Amino acid sequence: MKIVVHIDEAAEWQQALADAFPDAQVVTSDAPADQRQNADYLAVWKAPAHLLEEQTQLKGIINLGAGVDYLLKTPGLPTDVPIVKLRDAGMGELMADYVLYGVLHCYRSMDRYAAQQQHANWQPQHVVAKSQWPVGVLGLGAIGRYVADVLHQASFPVLGWSRSPKQITGLRCYHGDDGLDELLGQVQTVVTILPDTAATRHILDAERLAKLPDGASVINPGRGSLIDEQALLEALGNDSQPGHIRGALLDVFEEEPLPDEHPLWQHPRVLITPHMAAPTPLSDAIDQVIDYVKAFEAGETVTTIDPEAGY
Amino acid sequence: MKIVVHIDEAAEWQQALADAFPDAQVVTSDAPADQRQNADYLAVWKAPAHLLEEQTQLKGIINLGAGVDYLLKTPGLPTDVPIVKLRDAGMGELMADYVLYGVLHCYRSMDRYAAQQQHANWQPQHVVAKSQWPVGVLGLGAIGRYVADVLHQASFPVLGWSRSPKQITGLRCYHGDDGLDELLGQVQTVVTILPDTAATRHILDAERLAKLPDGASVINPGRGSLIDEQALLEALGNDSQPGHIRGALLDVFEEEPLPDEHPLWQHPRVLITPHMAAPTPLSDAIDQVIDYVKAFEAGETVTTIDPEAGY
Repeated sequence: MKIVVHIDEAAEWQQALADAFPDAQVVTSDAPADQRQNADYLAVWKAPAHLLEEQTQLKGIINLGAGVDYLLKTPGLPTDVPIVKLRDAGMGELMADYVLYGVLHCYRSMDRYAAQQQHANWQPQHVVAKSQWPVGVLGLGAIGRYVADVLHQASFPVLGWSRSPKQITGLRCYHGDDGLDELLGQVQTVVTILPDTAATRHILDAERLAKLPDGASVINPGRGSLIDEQALLEALGNDSQPGHIRGALLDVFEEEPLPDEHPLWQHPRVLITPHMAAPTPLSDAIDQVIDYVKAFEAGETVTTIDPEAGY
Repeated sequence: MKIVVHIDEAAEWQQALADAFPDAQVVTSDAPADQRQNADYLAVWKAPAHLLEEQTQLKGIINLGAGVDYLLKTPGLPTDVPIVKLRDAGMGELMADYVLYGVLHCYRSMDRYAAQQQHANWQPQHVVAKSQWPVGVLGLGAIGRYVADVLHQASFPVLGWSRSPKQITGLRCYHGDDGLDELLGQVQTVVTILPDTAATRHILDAERLAKLPDGASVINPGRGSLIDEQALLEALGNDSQPGHIRGALLDVFEEEPLPDEHPLWQHPRVLITPHMAAPTPLSDAIDQVIDYVKAFEAGETVTTIDPEAGY
């Protein structure tokens, strides 16, 4: 059995898989071509097209993350090989911490205190009750639901949105285009945790951003395509002419790394993080990969992703 | 019955108490002298000395917060009037949110991303497991325990310290001078939530700060006297010569408001907030005040503070 690994810090994955499957050949994608071809399994995150194209006897592709949009767009992806993805592997907690930080940043006026600090300005801001700070979570997959639950535990009212109707305890659920507009009109902070599909591209465009109340903030730990960045910049405005959006915490962008000259870098009310809201934690994730390989080898039924749906 | 209120936004308190006690005279401390004298109860936060001195028939003083150090130091405080203080009135949650924000700020490298953003530098930082990020909480009163519990729920290892031995579920407890040194050597973030007493003054001095590991951070939502600010500045260092302390989130200071020219304002790795970590939430607090007044009036036993101990 041969497993080829492609991801940052691939050596750690290679070692862990080699320990789990002592009879297997486990190589990383930077090995010479003859060593990385004829793989039985690819365990990959953002693999180059050639790695997919050159395979001849693949039994399964394991996507080392919850988002499969990159993989599904990669040229050379075989259509007859089952694809599985990591379930929330500690990623829910990482994402939830990131989002909670972003919500508290505005809710507790930490953005305003940072601005005041530059002028040695001691000016306490009012703290409203959390009941006055509803948070909208767009996307109710495993990670979206995890994030919504953590916000709910932290006593924020949580409104969730998904394309099709869902019922989730502790969550006011909205769906469809009308439901999205209805949700946006009510939330102080909106969080986008949707997959990257044709239907979600620029789901927050100028029109939708305009539906948010004055002073609302945006957190995007999901996918760069979800927000129209130009529309967001306009809704933020600038110091001389502030827009109705108070601020944004953004982890993902239409182009990554975010280009040096992009105006988002310089906006005083935007926090930029380099796609690190939910890095895959190795120890949790590796167990899932091992289980997938064992299940494939044993011929067991494995829940695979749906390339048509895009997730 | 006459109640005199002294606090920011006193009008809101006045209205709520007047509603609760329709037969009482409820006035704020900016009323003319004849109206604010001969009070039965003072409901106060940082009252001026004259308000205490001019009273002749007080039955009780209700401190509108959990910290009584200011009140106990106020000249003119009568020695024969019972003093009660607000229990954690939503303050635990406010404080815990503030501390969690501060812990996440360093744990998730948000401090480094903010610095990187100034140079359009896209550089993901490693996220260690939370098990590698122990947090120390100095002070295990009601609010300290609440904060410790929230950090524990968020999966951070929590080490607690108090002067005398305590045993608290989910918490590794330390006590005394030796216990404090032992705790400081192990934590990535230290949080000070102690009362202001002679024994806690500068409890984090140069020597104690030096015991923290390289790269540790400090959060002080407690009292300004707890930290030797000059020693903290030295432990932080500057850009050309960084010290071993990574950063600090400070809500309270030896002098408040923090003077304009104070170097803490300008330090790039210090976040300054204007004593707002735990403002008293009106709705929770007012119920306690009403209960205290009713208990005093009914001659019931009321748990008062111990002026000797200072809390």
